[in-house]
Amino acid sequence: MKSYREELWFETKTRRAYLNITPQVEAILRKSGVREGMVLVNAMHITASVYINDDEPGLLRDYDDFLERLAPHDARYRHNETGEDNGDAHVKRQIMGREVVVAITDGKLDFGPWEQIFYAEFDGRRRKRVLVKVIGE
Amino acid sequence: MKSYREELWFETKTRRAYLNITPQVEAILRKSGVREGMVLVNAMHITASVYINDDEPGLLRDYDDFLERLAPHDARYRHNETGEDNGDAHVKRQIMGREVVVAITDGKLDFGPWEQIFYAEFDGRRRKRVLVKVIGE
Amino acid sequence: MKSYREELWFETKTRRAYLNITPQVEAILRKSGVREGMVLVNAMHITASVYINDDEPGLLRDYDDFLERLAPHDARYRHNETGEDNGDAHVKRQIMGREVVVAITDGKLDFGPWEQIFYAEFDGRRRKRVLVKVIGE
Repeated sequence: MKSYREELWFETKTRRAYLNITPQVEAILRKSGVREGMVLVNAMHITASVYINDDEPGLLRDYDDFLERLAPHDARYRHNETGEDNGDAHVKRQIMGREVVVAITDGKLDFGPWEQIFYAEFDGRRRKRVLVKVIGE
Repeated sequence: MKSYREELWFETKTRRAYLNITPQVEAILRKSGVREGMVLVNAMHITASVYINDDEPGLLRDYDDFLERLAPHDARYRHNETGEDNGDAHVKRQIMGREVVVAITDGKLDFGPWEQIFYAEFDGRRRKRVLVKVIGE
Repeated sequence: MKSYREELWFETKTRRAYLNITPQVEAILRKSGVREGMVLVNAMHITASVYINDDEPGLLRDYDDFLERLAPHDARYRHNETGEDNGDAHVKRQIMGREVVVAITDGKLDFGPWEQIFYAEFDGRRRKRVLVKVIGE
């Protein structure tokens, strides 16, 4: 069994941002040399998500509206009594999820027609990481 | 390391539907010959989910009510300005998730007493796919 | 490829509870002898979650408030017409997720600075299980 690991780093200019990271994951997969297996892509921080959906600007705004409606930044969070201001980001991340696992078949991400991997930042403006771990043969 | 891949195809008669696909996944696992490892089951489309929960008709209606309350089909979505009418389906899928990873032990899905794998369709009435990828030995 | 499997058992005193199980998962990983691979940690019951986030008491109360707001225990659920009283727990579990997959690198959980694995119980006061499955080399 082969394994390969790489980190992606981000520093978004806005508090919240949605970045298509599919090309970076594909580049790491090529470097890994794995032809059959699985790749795990996960946020290493707990106020960000990795998820798979469509790269359509209207949809990204729909997601942002939906998340802000369910967990508004300006609501009261007990977590913020610790001095943080990111209680909402911890909730938003749980809704969108931490990680995706993608099948690798014939050296490629085994994707349907519209699947794209996104990094969703809910507490940006600082350096944060995503882990890409490939296992297989 | 062995790997095996198969697709399941669906075309539901209703816009939304919840289908127990556990027998199909078990059949694929048997064909794979894998005794120890993991199986990834994921929607290949971005308006559908694969999740694990109980096969109880009341619960399926509870899920549908819950999802329609959080992301009603008839609400306004920027995504629908592209000509689509499935903005709600993209949101519902994020709540329920894209994929499950299940342990394989002694050639079987390593499940608790009530775990069942479901395909949740949020924008049906057309042909759509689920990927089953098995890795292990 | 190596594989290793162990169960964790819980019986919480309260209906809902949030338990940091990172030390138990680390202990299982050491026993497995796996240096490179992945570990799957999943609830084996369908009214509980395994998720990764911060071990901060205020945040755990924020999560509980959020989940109870979205799916109150005392609301009407069709599932409860079967004689159950845990319809809310099936919904809460879907929001927080069933499982996490964590990379194993150099014999350790490949974690960012604040990642901790939690067992979230939404229908406790009885014995329930979590599965830890390790694969790799």
